[in-house]
Amino acid sequence: MFGEFNLIDKYFSARQAQRKDVHLTLGDDCAIVKAPDNVRIAISTDTLVAGTHFLPEANPAWVAHKALASNLSDLAAMGATPAWVSMALTLPHIDEAWLEPFCHAFFELANYYNIQLIGGDTTKGPLSITLTVQGFVPQDKVLLRNQAKVGDWVYVTGELGDSKAGLDVILAPEKRQEPFAAELEQRHYLSTPRILAGQALLNLASAAIDISDGLISDLGHILHQSQVGVSLDVNCLPMSKELRQFAPSIQVAQQYALTSGEEYELCFTVPAQNKGTLDSALAHCGTKVTCIGQIRPQGVFELLNNGQKLDWALSGYDHFKEVK
Amino acid sequence: MFGEFNLIDKYFSARQAQRKDVHLTLGDDCAIVKAPDNVRIAISTDTLVAGTHFLPEANPAWVAHKALASNLSDLAAMGATPAWVSMALTLPHIDEAWLEPFCHAFFELANYYNIQLIGGDTTKGPLSITLTVQGFVPQDKVLLRNQAKVGDWVYVTGELGDSKAGLDVILAPEKRQEPFAAELEQRHYLSTPRILAGQALLNLASAAIDISDGLISDLGHILHQSQVGVSLDVNCLPMSKELRQFAPSIQVAQQYALTSGEEYELCFTVPAQNKGTLDSALAHCGTKVTCIGQIRPQGVFELLNNGQKLDWALSGYDHFKEVK
Repeated sequence: MFGEFNLIDKYFSARQAQRKDVHLTLGDDCAIVKAPDNVRIAISTDTLVAGTHFLPEANPAWVAHKALASNLSDLAAMGATPAWVSMALTLPHIDEAWLEPFCHAFFELANYYNIQLIGGDTTKGPLSITLTVQGFVPQDKVLLRNQAKVGDWVYVTGELGDSKAGLDVILAPEKRQEPFAAELEQRHYLSTPRILAGQALLNLASAAIDISDGLISDLGHILHQSQVGVSLDVNCLPMSKELRQFAPSIQVAQQYALTSGEEYELCFTVPAQNKGTLDSALAHCGTKVTCIGQIRPQGVFELLNNGQKLDWALSGYDHFKEVK
Repeated sequence: MFGEFNLIDKYFSARQAQRKDVHLTLGDDCAIVKAPDNVRIAISTDTLVAGTHFLPEANPAWVAHKALASNLSDLAAMGATPAWVSMALTLPHIDEAWLEPFCHAFFELANYYNIQLIGGDTTKGPLSITLTVQGFVPQDKVLLRNQAKVGDWVYVTGELGDSKAGLDVILAPEKRQEPFAAELEQRHYLSTPRILAGQALLNLASAAIDISDGLISDLGHILHQSQVGVSLDVNCLPMSKELRQFAPSIQVAQQYALTSGEEYELCFTVPAQNKGTLDSALAHCGTKVTCIGQIRPQGVFELLNNGQKLDWALSGYDHFKEVK
C-alpha cells in the first residue's frame, strides 16, 4: 500500500457522481449504503489480470472500460439496474500517466450508468483490477439461466465475433495496417453493457446470460441448467462488416461468432408468445437483437446452414455436447 | 480462467452455510440477495497479494484466515453484522494441495461468523485474494471515525504489537527456535475479528477504527477526521508475554504496540458517561479492552510515560503530526 489516502483522494473521490442511497463512501472502514425496500440486490465480481486478460501495455482507458463493462454486463444479464461498485486495484508502482486515463475512463462509464464507486483497496503487486458491482432487481423478477423451454426462440444482442478478431489483431502486429484493424481492436476492449436491454427483457425473456466465454460455451450453460437442447442457424449470426473483411471465409467468420469470448452481448431465450412484442419492447434501447435459433428437447444440438447440419469442432463445443 | 465451474463446485459450493437472505448464489451471472428493510449495508474490499501481504510459501490456511479476518475486522469497526462475501481468487495454476487447506480454513471462519460466500471469480495470474464483505448496521447507528470528542477515553481491544513481532520472526529464520516464535508467527496471520465487540460498541463508542496500519497511524485517522488531539500512556498499552520476551526492552515492546500493523484489533473512543458501563456491555464478547489514553484538543499529541512526555520517532507519527 502506498500513500493510499492521497491516491484515493486525487484519482477517485473527486470524480464521483453522488447517489442518494450512498450514505458513506471512501474514507472510513466500510462504505454504508441502503437498498430500496422493494428490491433484491444482484452482485457480481470479476478480475482482470495483466498478461491474462489484457496486455500490460494496453491503453489504460480501454482497460478501465473493459473492467467495468464486463462487470456491468453481468448485471445486464440479470436485468439489474446498476447501483454501486467496489474496486480493488493492484499496481506495481504509482504511475500517474497510467492512472489518469484509467480513472477518467472508469468514471466516464460509471457516471453514464449511474453506478457509484463506494470503496476499494489499492495495493502494490502485479497489475490487476477486481470489481464488485451491485445492482437492483425487482423482488419477483430476475433473468436466470435455468428457465428456457422447448420452443423458445434464441436471440443475441449486437454483433458477434469482433472481440476474438480484435484479439487476433492485437497479437499479430502485421495485421494492424489492415482497414478493419483499428475497429476490431477497439471492439475487443470497448463493449457496450446491455443494461437497458436486460431490464426490458425482465418481462419477456425466459433465460439470459452474457457472452463472456463464447456463444457456444455460454449458451451451453443455459441449456445445461434448463435441461434443454438447441438448434442454431449459422446464417442468422449477426456479424460486423469488419469481421467479414477480417475473416478469410464466411465459415471462419461464423466460427468466430460462435466462439468469440469477451463479447459482453446478451444471449437470451424468448417464449413464442412474446416474440411479437420483443422489437417494440427493446425499441428504446437502441440495441439490435437477432434471432439465431430455437430451443429443442434435451439431447438435441444442431448447427444448421440452410437446413443442412454442420459438424464443426468448435471451442466450447465439448461442454455443449456434455448436455446430450 | 481454468475449468472455473468445476473448481467452484469442488471447493466452494459444497461447503456453504445457507443464509435465508441469499436467493441465488454461485452459478449464474450474479448472486441475488435481499437485505432486511430496516438496515443499511456496510461494504468493504481488501486485497492480499503474495509477496506484498504474505509470503508465497505461507500456510494457505493462515492466508485464508488472514484474508477473511482482515475484511471482517472492517465490518467490526463499523459495528456491522456480517452477511455476505464475494471472493476474487487469482492463482498461478490449480494447486489442490494449496486450495484444500485454503478453502477449509476460509469456510471454517466464514461459517463461524455466519457470512456466506455468494460469488466470485477465479482467474489465472500471480497469487492474490480480493474479498468484498457486506454486513448490516442499524439505520440510525454506525461507528464512524469523525465523532471523537475532547475528553473521550481511548481504548483498544486485545493486545498490540504481536503482528509486527510475528512478521520479524517470519522474516528471520534464526528467531524461529525461540520459545515465543510459534505464537507470534501465528498471531501475525490468525487475528480474531472483533465483531461482537463492534456491535456492543454501537451504543457506547463515539468513534472506532480497526488497526490495520498501526495504532498511531489508524488513531491518526480518528484524530484527523474528528479534529481532535490525544494523550496516550505507553504504560497502559496491552501487550502479550510473548512480545515482552521477544523485545529487548520494554520500550521496544511499547514501540511495537504503537506501530504494529495488521493487528485487526479495534481502537475506539468512549465518552466519559459511558465508561462505567463498558465492561458490562462487553462482558458477553470475551474481548479484553484497555484504556490507553484520552482525547485532547486538536493540536495536542502526547505520548506519556509515568507523566513524562516521550519524543519517540515512530512510523505513522508524521501523519499524526500533520494533525497539529
